[in-house]
Amino acid sequence: MEDRKQQEQASPAVRKRVQDNFDRQGLMAHLGARITEIAPGRVHIVLPSRPEVSQQHGFIHAGATSAIADSAGGYAALTLLADDSEVLTVEYKINLLAPAVGDHIEAIGTVLRSGRTLTVCQLEVYGVRDDGERKLVANGQQTLIRVSGDGGGTR
Amino acid sequence: MEDRKQQEQASPAVRKRVQDNFDRQGLMAHLGARITEIAPGRVHIVLPSRPEVSQQHGFIHAGATSAIADSAGGYAALTLLADDSEVLTVEYKINLLAPAVGDHIEAIGTVLRSGRTLTVCQLEVYGVRDDGERKLVANGQQTLIRVSGDGGGTR
Amino acid sequence: MEDRKQQEQASPAVRKRVQDNFDRQGLMAHLGARITEIAPGRVHIVLPSRPEVSQQHGFIHAGATSAIADSAGGYAALTLLADDSEVLTVEYKINLLAPAVGDHIEAIGTVLRSGRTLTVCQLEVYGVRDDGERKLVANGQQTLIRVSGDGGGTR
Amino acid sequence: MEDRKQQEQASPAVRKRVQDNFDRQGLMAHLGARITEIAPGRVHIVLPSRPEVSQQHGFIHAGATSAIADSAGGYAALTLLADDSEVLTVEYKINLLAPAVGDHIEAIGTVLRSGRTLTVCQLEVYGVRDDGERKLVANGQQTLIRVSGDGGGTR
Repeated sequence: MEDRKQQEQASPAVRKRVQDNFDRQGLMAHLGARITEIAPGRVHIVLPSRPEVSQQHGFIHAGATSAIADSAGGYAALTLLADDSEVLTVEYKINLLAPAVGDHIEAIGTVLRSGRTLTVCQLEVYGVRDDGERKLVANGQQTLIRVSGDGGGTR
Repeated sequence: MEDRKQQEQASPAVRKRVQDNFDRQGLMAHLGARITEIAPGRVHIVLPSRPEVSQQHGFIHAGATSAIADSAGGYAALTLLADDSEVLTVEYKINLLAPAVGDHIEAIGTVLRSGRTLTVCQLEVYGVRDDGERKLVANGQQTLIRVSGDGGGTR
Repeated sequence: MEDRKQQEQASPAVRKRVQDNFDRQGLMAHLGARITEIAPGRVHIVLPSRPEVSQQHGFIHAGATSAIADSAGGYAALTLLADDSEVLTVEYKINLLAPAVGDHIEAIGTVLRSGRTLTVCQLEVYGVRDDGERKLVANGQQTLIRVSGDGGGTR
Repeated sequence: MEDRKQQEQASPAVRKRVQDNFDRQGLMAHLGARITEIAPGRVHIVLPSRPEVSQQHGFIHAGATSAIADSAGGYAALTLLADDSEVLTVEYKINLLAPAVGDHIEAIGTVLRSGRTLTVCQLEVYGVRDDGERKLVANGQQTLIRVSGDGGGTR
């Protein structure tokens, strides 16, 4: 089990590249999000529940849910691209399936198709309680475009 | 002109209801967003650019762009519903058309169709410079469902 | 294996209800589509490749791909609802991942969440060659609303 | 008025290119769709109501509605690209706002943003009665990618 997990992780170089990029995103730090897993074609981001990310009923705001889902997909795409590439989100669509309850939410971005120019990801967000109970609270689909590392892009 | 603008505003009761609801959303305050216009079927939300809402190149993060677009649509829907109703976002789709540059971004949610159960909104986000230059940076479409005021919902 | 398949099928009453509804859709017959599997929360629709459903390069047209994907999701939703219910598509989003090549395409609609009012489905379309090779050519997500059986609906 | 209309039409070369491409789409002919306007960045496609394009209540099937909306957007994109370019639909999202009633439906694809690689279009579909009454029945948003003229593509 431990071995399997190890095997699934991206290379140290890829993990560093993803983490460094993430650390430059002011919004992720401001929300309190952190990356918890970086596998080839799959990245997990966790966001603890707290008043600063809530909507009017105290659940996690759809905007925060979407923000970490979008980022998880973007970094999942990045794990499969060459060192000097970056990605930009072209578009995404997300269904909010249930109130984002739980002690934290976990977004999982998974690459469905990695092409020369475009990457398509599946986005899932789970509400997770500290006792381990998990529930799918959002599900989405995202299109990204590969750009040169200066963020200029050919979009 | 002044008259037209006045006429376009929602009633004081509706505006209060929208503003009160907005003020209970921890995320909007945490991001630094504020409502700037509440018309029947249309709401504007502004978010100033600052490091706390940025992505890795210093532009406003797609997650922040989406969050205020989603909220603008939700409140636009709310302006057309009875007093004891609330809305939940069922889903939305957003295209990020250009880097969200500018001194602030402005999201405009506009109701396309207001039905008994569902409301469909158009979402637009503009990057705005202090000198007044505006550019469309995101465009989306959103579906919302009316729920009873306790946030329970029949989704 | 045979048992498993049997088990997964919807009840004869549900299958009849789905098939009867499908048979009343002029478009499905006109395209040449047919239902190949009706399981609880999952329906498969197959469309053979032929000039009448092609785009300009001879691949199956995205419009035909989408049409059977949308129908597969709608019928998947219907399998989980009471006898006197129908569903209407509220919206869907689909990514065309690759040219829809193959001797036929197979759309699979799977219910992700079945609520009192709304159902959310995942849509997949595979290009299938007669030699059995399969490739995912489209992936989507769909929202449906339950309506009374006269098609009136509360949308 | 006549002048305005004239002015808005695309050049004869562009119109020929669009029409020729359309004429090679087996599905459009099979459905009975035809192009009625080709302007720079905007194309209209009309589909008459008849049993062959219906769903179970006799309204035009969402699949047919989507098919002509997708095509209208694709051709709108094509009007703004160089002669040797083609476009492929990357993805689209469409809300079905009301039953597609009327004697025919008219899809209008309008380019929102035309970039080097990607084009984003707005999609609208109206139900139109012979007496001229029009109603918005669907609204969508579409992303397309420019490819070389052999349909190969860099997607």
